[in-house]
Formats: sequence, structure tokens, C-alpha cells
Amino acid sequence: MAQTPRRSRRGGRAARQQNRQNAAAAPFITRNIPCYEILNTEGLEIIEANAETILFETGIEFRGDTQVLDLWRQAGADVQGERVRVPKGLARRLCALAPSEFTQCARNRARNVRIGGKATVFAPVYGSPFVHDLDKGRRYGTIEDFHNFTKLAYLSPHLHHSGGTLCEPVDIDIATRHLDMVYSHIRYSDKAFMGSVTSGQNAQDSLAMARIVFGEEFTANNTVLLSLINANSPLVYDATMLGALKAYAGAGQACIISPFILAGAMSPVTPAAVLAQLLAEAMAGIALAQLIRPGAPVIFGAFVSSISMQSGAPTFGTPESSMLIMGAAQLARRLNVPFRSGGSFCAAKLPDAQAAAESANSLMSTLLSGVNFVLHAAGWMEGGLVSSFEKFVMDTDQLGMMHVLAKGIAMDEEAQAMDAIREVGPGGHFLGCAHTQSHFKTAFYNSAMADNNSFEQWQAEGSRDAMTRANALWKKQLAEYEAPPLDPIIDEALADFMARRRSEITNSDSGSNG
Amino acid sequence: MAQTPRRSRRGGRAARQQNRQNAAAAPFITRNIPCYEILNTEGLEIIEANAETILFETGIEFRGDTQVLDLWRQAGADVQGERVRVPKGLARRLCALAPSEFTQCARNRARNVRIGGKATVFAPVYGSPFVHDLDKGRRYGTIEDFHNFTKLAYLSPHLHHSGGTLCEPVDIDIATRHLDMVYSHIRYSDKAFMGSVTSGQNAQDSLAMARIVFGEEFTANNTVLLSLINANSPLVYDATMLGALKAYAGAGQACIISPFILAGAMSPVTPAAVLAQLLAEAMAGIALAQLIRPGAPVIFGAFVSSISMQSGAPTFGTPESSMLIMGAAQLARRLNVPFRSGGSFCAAKLPDAQAAAESANSLMSTLLSGVNFVLHAAGWMEGGLVSSFEKFVMDTDQLGMMHVLAKGIAMDEEAQAMDAIREVGPGGHFLGCAHTQSHFKTAFYNSAMADNNSFEQWQAEGSRDAMTRANALWKKQLAEYEAPPLDPIIDEALADFMARRRSEITNSDSGSNG
Repeated sequence: MAQTPRRSRRGGRAARQQNRQNAAAAPFITRNIPCYEILNTEGLEIIEANAETILFETGIEFRGDTQVLDLWRQAGADVQGERVRVPKGLARRLCALAPSEFTQCARNRARNVRIGGKATVFAPVYGSPFVHDLDKGRRYGTIEDFHNFTKLAYLSPHLHHSGGTLCEPVDIDIATRHLDMVYSHIRYSDKAFMGSVTSGQNAQDSLAMARIVFGEEFTANNTVLLSLINANSPLVYDATMLGALKAYAGAGQACIISPFILAGAMSPVTPAAVLAQLLAEAMAGIALAQLIRPGAPVIFGAFVSSISMQSGAPTFGTPESSMLIMGAAQLARRLNVPFRSGGSFCAAKLPDAQAAAESANSLMSTLLSGVNFVLHAAGWMEGGLVSSFEKFVMDTDQLGMMHVLAKGIAMDEEAQAMDAIREVGPGGHFLGCAHTQSHFKTAFYNSAMADNNSFEQWQAEGSRDAMTRANALWKKQLAEYEAPPLDPIIDEALADFMARRRSEITNSDSGSNG
Repeated sequence: MAQTPRRSRRGGRAARQQNRQNAAAAPFITRNIPCYEILNTEGLEIIEANAETILFETGIEFRGDTQVLDLWRQAGADVQGERVRVPKGLARRLCALAPSEFTQCARNRARNVRIGGKATVFAPVYGSPFVHDLDKGRRYGTIEDFHNFTKLAYLSPHLHHSGGTLCEPVDIDIATRHLDMVYSHIRYSDKAFMGSVTSGQNAQDSLAMARIVFGEEFTANNTVLLSLINANSPLVYDATMLGALKAYAGAGQACIISPFILAGAMSPVTPAAVLAQLLAEAMAGIALAQLIRPGAPVIFGAFVSSISMQSGAPTFGTPESSMLIMGAAQLARRLNVPFRSGGSFCAAKLPDAQAAAESANSLMSTLLSGVNFVLHAAGWMEGGLVSSFEKFVMDTDQLGMMHVLAKGIAMDEEAQAMDAIREVGPGGHFLGCAHTQSHFKTAFYNSAMADNNSFEQWQAEGSRDAMTRANALWKKQLAEYEAPPLDPIIDEALADFMARRRSEITNSDSGSNG
């Protein structure tokens, strides 16, 4: 290996990585590889027919929202109390009004993300009450943790989106927390972000802040927010989610309509049944978004995994969940809407081998299935209870690998390299040949996490396992963080808005307490 | 989760696992899912044309074996010195003589493995000089380690094959080591195994031992040995490998004809070029096997990964290696021969998150590519320098998951579970419904490695990471090991043969030393 390019020192490698990152990274993945198709057409048609039967026979409940029930009634559904039975074909016809692809704008327009088609967008973990790092262990999340995750997501060239509830900042008032979270995404990142869904009013606040950042008119005519609307599986949408859906879809902003199914608890155990129920729930939610505003941008969401039949606990990275992601992606493509599923899921309590195996199984299934929007792509741990700093940087490294895989195999003459094979011939080696030298910098993905050194060198550097190296990596990244510029006028307007809303919310809380 | 089936104690779970294992596990996987196809027909045709060009223009060297050169000359190739240039189409025509599928017999016929078509066979790690476990750390392998890996492979229902050089037993004489290794597979397992390839004579010894176990006539008419013949990439087969190939193919026994390519060192860096060179080398080796004995069973092998362009060290679980496995599998299918590639590869020094991520990336690519024979499916660590006990049981757990994924999504009425969805309805839960109860035991893969318990329970059990749990698991498995029965007459005959050969080899060594 004498002719190997000289091994560079840690500083040099870090500097190169920074340079690569600062160079215009593509704002999202454009997949150049086929989607894996686990189901054949016959299987897909059976599932689609079953979904229609579920919506028609059993129906689905929309709770605590008479406006929504009226919309369904007017569309021709059979509404009994809160139960809505949908005539066969109606939900699918309404879904056809949704765009097959759309763009979510970021405040840095170079980071706009395309949602749908051959695009894949990676976004960080969402919704964990706890955070974990090796120094301080497992603890409730704080707003400082939240800011730090925003910063790490901003820094990674392999995350295209800033996400939403990166962790629950439980050290600040729950009534106004949504303001601080939305502000964190705006202030510490310039990537696209998600709005609050904890109430219709909180969604309106998110919209108001987006209007300050993007302008009234631009926000009216473009997608600048993407928000996560979960079905309460099986077959229920609750008033909170409906309130948020009405706010966002009504404003022409995008919603992920996402059943949240742990098979065995919220659905039958068998994948064919999970998929039919999932499709019924997703179609009903997407159809409702179209009743609220025809053409509203939506994403077919599928949070699907299994449970341990021993403990009842959710399980992740399982073969069953891989099959569900693969099958659901096919159903979404046939519905001709963008698809959200998968991520770097795990049930592990530490960023150890269990975490990594589960996450890799999830992520590989996610990419090969052709998922368009991947929430939870970095930092997810312990079944979503924990946002992990170490796992965050481990995951973004894996996301980098997925960027390479998504490009597929180049077949141009330079890639065929027949001259290099002729030049080297039998028994030679390719380290020094012209083709290798000219591709040396970009030939292979350069992992920030993997230690590929000799055992002796690894030992000399302290025999550090992957989680120990990850601990050093995220701290180094945060130390190097610099905030993207934000127009001081916008920043001030946001501060004014948040101050006013804090005062209003606190007073109304006092009022209702009084 | 109140209605979750009662959480069972550790003993109960272990007992159930043992029962499942003892119940007739399928002796190999029959894939019921499609193969992932990363290359389109145009790409495949370009690579095939380039492979023919390489064999015709540059040619390939067969070193130190005039008999082999004569075979090529008689077949119509242009032989200059040791360089063989193959007329276009000749190698492919010869490959067509190889069977598209075959069965390798095990001494327990219930464990015969099918090689090719929709079958996937998992075999353990091969060829590591070192072993590693958490108790004793990294050290040279011994024959005791070797026996222990044979036992662990025998015990796993997810490994179908006993493999070959599970580790190098460096504590015993290199000249007779092959006898001890083959004997270990026969004595401590009843699964199919591999023969020695360290010389033509060692291959003959392996054949002799197989004849003692299976009988002369049975061995003459059936495949009972499978052996690994590596090309010395680029474009060389050396005398040692040719000696072993002649012995095995001549006896009608199966050979994996496997280029060993670390892209950037033994081939160009670009996947399109790696695949063309790989196909040229594999076709030449398979064609030679057919010249030695038309119809000899072979497997198209592809050990393909990349190197770190920083250190020159081999890297594993990379996106480039995934693409190579996927593409090579398509080439092998078009050649209509069984395919060997992939495994649970990693470069990590410990069974940590790096090891698990790299292995999962490899293994998922391997399964979805439709690989037929998967060497290194369990225990591989540190780029193949180390056989790891902890990683062995982590990997076999992942192999179990692949068994489930390979089955695909059942679409029968029971799997559609429409009655369960009707029964439970909106807002209910499925834990107690009849369908869930009747599928409770088999619904989901029950991982032996994953901890899916609550954080509090995991903490109460000692906050053990995955590698610590794996350490307990392999020791428990070894403690419970019972050898399969072996006819004492056969055992005695093997002992006699080995004693005679030891004496002959030692005397011939003394002779040559004197």
C-alpha cells in the first residue's frame, strides 16, 4: 500500500469535510435508482380494495369537530355521530386533487426542498421528551438541547430539513413552547422547518411566524411550512389534529397525513392488514385536506412498526417494519402523492450495536423503498422517547452513505475505466494509476464515524468505540457552529410577535384559572 | 397495554427459543420476494461487453500450472506464456455448461442445502487469523476457538452451513491444520461444510475425509464439499488455487469461483469498472472449471468492497459495496449460475455501533440482491482479520430477521384480517382480539439480542449494552451445546486417516528439511 495517498492528520480531514460541506451540497436527494417493490400488482389491488371496504363498511371517526363532519356530509359520505362512512371511490377521487409533488421553501432559497417524485428529503428526530448524551446521560429535554439539535441539523450536509419538535423542551412553559421551537428553527438554521400541531391556535402562531419570515404574499402562494398530522389509529382523527389540519391545509400549507400504527396494538399483526388499514386512514385524511382546500399539498405518511409480543413495547428495525415501509411506499406511489415513512429507528437505550443495526435496517429499507420525506432520519433512540446527541451524528453519517447509494452506478465511459484496466493488467495494482488518482477525492464516501485504521493505530488512539467517537464528534461540530445570517428586522418582528403572544397566552391562562 | 400477554421470565423465553430451534427449521431460505435490480439492461449489457473485451484484449493469467494452460489452448484461447486471451463468447459458452442450481449434501440429510435459484444459504465467517471476545480480547485463533465457532454455527437455526476456516487455529501445525479443521466440522456439526484450498494435496485430504463420511460412491455422485477458490485480482489465478480447483472440480465437487476485489487497489474505483473486471475474472474461472470437468457445480463469487482513500485500509458496509453486490448479483443471474457475495461485513475493531451499521448495510443489500450463498454471514469483524464471538451471535440474530423479510408479505385471507378490523373498529385496540391471539407466538420475529424493555427495566437489569448482552448469549449457547451423533465407525476411520496423513506429512517435512 506504499502508493496510497499520504494519510492525512485529523485536522486535515476535518478541514476537508468542512470544505465539502460548505461547497453547495444538493438541497435534497434525487434518486437515480429503482424503488424496491415487495408487493406485486395483485397484492396491491387486494389491499386497495380492502381499504375501500374499511372506509365504506366500518368507517372512520372524526372527533370533536362538526365542521369536518359537515365537509364529509357535503361530499356525500354517510355521517352517523362522529363516524364517517365513505362511499367506495370517493376518498381516492379526492386524493387525486392533491399535488403529486411540491416544493417547500426554506428561508435560504438554495435550501428549498422538493417533496415527491424522485426526491428524498431527510429530516431529524421529532417529538422525544428525553435527550441523551454520554456525558449527562438520559434526562428531560431543554430548550438548550433543542437549539443544539437545530444547530447539528443545520451543520449536516446530509440533513435537508430542520424538522420540528427536535425534543420536547420541558424546561419552558408548555403553553408558549411552540413559539420557542419555531423560533429556534428560524434563528439557528436556514433550512425548511415544521409547524406546531399541538392545537389549531398553535398552528396559527406558526403560520404567523412564517409570514413574518417569508412575507404575507409569499406565504399565501408557496409552501413554507410542513406539519405532522397523526391519525389516532385505528380509524380515528382527534380534535387537536383536525384543528391543526384545518389551519395548515386552509392556508395552503403542507401536511403529512400520518397514521401511527404499532401492529398488534393499533392494527392487526399481519402486514397485509396493516397496509389496508393504513391506506384507509391515510386516504381519509388526505381526502379531508382536499375538502378543506382542494389542491392542498399533502404527504401520505406511514409510521408503522411492530410491538414485542412479550412485553408490549414497540420494536424497531424489524423485518416486519421493513416490509411495511416497502409496501406502503408502493401504495402511495399508486395514489400519486408524496410519501413519508421510515427513518433511523431503534428501540435501544444506548447508541450501541442494537441501535445501529435497527437504524441501518430501517434506513436501508427507507431509501430503497423510495420514501420522499424521511422524518426521524437522525437522532432517534429508545423508541422515540429519546433524542440522542451521539446517535444524531452516527445517523447523519449513515445518511451520507444513502446519498451515494441513491446515485446508483454511473455507466459513462469514465466510469467504465477500460483504459485503467488495460493500463494495469494482470497482477498489477490500481492505487497509482491515472484513473484512481483523478478520482481519489470523490471515489468513495468518506465516513466521519467509521474507524478504518489498523487495530494498532486504533489502539494507539485510545481503543475508542463508536459511541465514544460520536461524543467527540457532536461536541466538535457544535463548537464550530456559526449561525446563518438573519435579517435583524425580521428577528425583531419575531421577537415582538412572540412577546405579544406570550402575554396573551399567559393572560388567558390566568383568566381561565381565575 | 394491560392486555399484553404476560411478560415471561428469561428462562421461559430461552426455552421457547430452544424449542423453536429444535423444531424442523428450514435448512435454507427460499426467497419469496423480488431481487433488487440496481442496473438496467443497457448497463448490464455494457458491463458484459466490457468483460468480454478484457478477456480478449488484456487476457488473464493462470500461473504455475501448464495443465491449465493446455486446457485453455485446446479450448481455442490464445496462450502466450501464462497469459490467456479468450475469444469473445468462449467463456460464456463454457459457463453455460455449469448447473444453474445444485444441492450440497450434509451428513444429516435434513440439512442439505440448495445452492442457486430462489435459495439463500448463510454460512459463517471464513479465514480470520485472530479471534476476539470481551473476556480475553483480541488474540490469535486456536483450535479450541475453531471448535467453539463450529458449535455456535451448529446451534443457530439461522445459519444453514458450517462454513470452512472459521478462524485460523494457529496453535496447531500449519502442515496438518486442514485435517483438524475439516474434522471439527464433521465432529461438532452435521451441517454441510467446506474443504481446504491451501494446496491441491490438502484438497485431496478434504475429499478423502468426505469419502469416509459420505461413502465413496455417494461422494462420486453428489456434491458434499464446497470450496472457496479466490482469483488473485486483477486478472490472475495462482498455482495454489488452481491446484485446489483441479482437485475439487475434477471430483465433481463444488467451487466458489471468487474474485477478491478491494476497489481502488485490485480494480478501478468506479463500480461499472469493478463489475466488468469481476465478471471477466469469474467467467474465466467458471469456464476453467468446466474445461476441467464439464458440468462441475460452481458458484459465481464476488468479494467486493472499497478501500479508504486516506489510509488504504479496506472498508465495509459502504454504499459502494452495496451497489457492487447488487450489480454483481444481476450479472450472475444473467450467466445463469448460483451467486455468492455479501455477508455481515465490517471494519470495526469492536462489536459496536460501527460494526452493526456496517454489517446491517451489507446484509440487507445481500438479501435484497438475491445472493444464493452468503459466506461471512456471522462473526466477521475488523475487515476479516478477526472472528468475534459476540458479533457471531449478534449476526445470527440479524440473519433470523432476514429469514422473515425473505418470506415477504402474505396475502391470504387470514393475513388480510378484515374480520379483525371490523371487530375492533375505530379507537379500539387489537391486543386482545381473536386474530392477534391466534398469531401471538409467530406474529413477529423474536430477537434474541434486542432489548425492547422499558428504560427502567433495562436499567434494573444492569444497563447492559448490546455487546455485553451478546457476551452472555454466546457463553450460554456454548454451555448448552450437545454434539450431534456421529457413527463411531466413521469417527474411527477419520482418526485413522488423520493419523496416517499426519505421519506422512511430518515425515515428508522432515525429509525436505533434512
